[in-house]
Amino acid sequence: MELVYMGKTKDVYQLDDGNYLLKFKDDVTGEDGKFNPGANTVGLTIEGAGKAALRLTTFFFERLERENILTHFISSDIEHQTMKVIPAKSFGEGLEVICRYRAVGSFLRRYGKYAEEGQALDAFVEVTLKDDERGDPPISKDALEMLGILSSDEYETLKEMTIQISSLVKAELAKKGVELYDIKLEFGRNDAGDIILIDEISGGNLRAYKDGEYIEPIALTKLILD
Amino acid sequence: MELVYMGKTKDVYQLDDGNYLLKFKDDVTGEDGKFNPGANTVGLTIEGAGKAALRLTTFFFERLERENILTHFISSDIEHQTMKVIPAKSFGEGLEVICRYRAVGSFLRRYGKYAEEGQALDAFVEVTLKDDERGDPPISKDALEMLGILSSDEYETLKEMTIQISSLVKAELAKKGVELYDIKLEFGRNDAGDIILIDEISGGNLRAYKDGEYIEPIALTKLILD
Repeated sequence: MELVYMGKTKDVYQLDDGNYLLKFKDDVTGEDGKFNPGANTVGLTIEGAGKAALRLTTFFFERLERENILTHFISSDIEHQTMKVIPAKSFGEGLEVICRYRAVGSFLRRYGKYAEEGQALDAFVEVTLKDDERGDPPISKDALEMLGILSSDEYETLKEMTIQISSLVKAELAKKGVELYDIKLEFGRNDAGDIILIDEISGGNLRAYKDGEYIEPIALTKLILD
Repeated sequence: MELVYMGKTKDVYQLDDGNYLLKFKDDVTGEDGKFNPGANTVGLTIEGAGKAALRLTTFFFERLERENILTHFISSDIEHQTMKVIPAKSFGEGLEVICRYRAVGSFLRRYGKYAEEGQALDAFVEVTLKDDERGDPPISKDALEMLGILSSDEYETLKEMTIQISSLVKAELAKKGVELYDIKLEFGRNDAGDIILIDEISGGNLRAYKDGEYIEPIALTKLILD
């Protein structure tokens, strides 16, 4: 198998059968040695982070499969920290779709004139471009359409899937008394052209709190699965 | 009459009859002593800038009146650089609505991964918050609604009026061989709750080019009106 992409938190290998293998690493995003799911750079390495991310991702992707929500997931090998997935084409050079239940992070940095820190938001969805150089700028439905990245219908599908997936994750966390503040999802198109969820769902791409305290990714996996 | 607000390019006085008087100043927005219609700070003072802005604004607001597009305009006194306007309530603490025909300025800084400099855009509308501290962040229709700044219907009205007004300005400039690249409009609600155009339409809030050369605000007024 051939290494085709080295990501910040995962490496991607192409398999002979046309599928791909994601290798979950122990690197996590952050700044100044501190974990931050909203950051664009690898901040630090935490032993066990890759396995914890894969375990939670596997749990959620299998759960989504039972709800008939399309994802790229085929199977996981927890021991080797790998996940087998079908091929998917990204939208443009990649989008991130964020669903927010509390006003924190970049939402607050942008709209702090109108929102209190931690204020409840009603599954607010926004899209950002994956573009490290330009700080992952938020982009509107109209702009996505004009730049040929997403059609108007695809945007609505993406938004609907995002709310559906996020509310499922929120409900699962709530069973353990954990509150989901926000979550960042990625989507792509499968060979048939359908929109499918790709990447991962773990502590690395969401903010979870219990009794007002932020829960680190590894602790989150333990809290939800063990 | 009482001075109620000192703006970057205009001062606002309240009149005894309940209306307001805008005093157009010779200060223009810019950075490092260079004029820039997209800037947030007063960059320099140009003799005649206030009068030129008022003349062009008066021309366009009278033109819009004939098209039955609601504005805050009552009358102008070019000699004293003042414009009399009806009261209007801003949306939240103020929005700017931008209509773009070419990819330049902040659009390009955000979406340069997907757009060439100067690429044609089809009357692309976006809204930004007036918030100097946070760099006038762009904001989506969904966020405007969630934060209670604009209803979904108001957003559509604003977008429609913006395209209508901008295309009228574009057509007027085109008569003199001038191309409109982008324009920044402001709206408010009148006492009846209708959405009306406020502020100004001049070289100070648009980018105009002739034969590939940018035209400074005072030169633009002369080119269009003299």
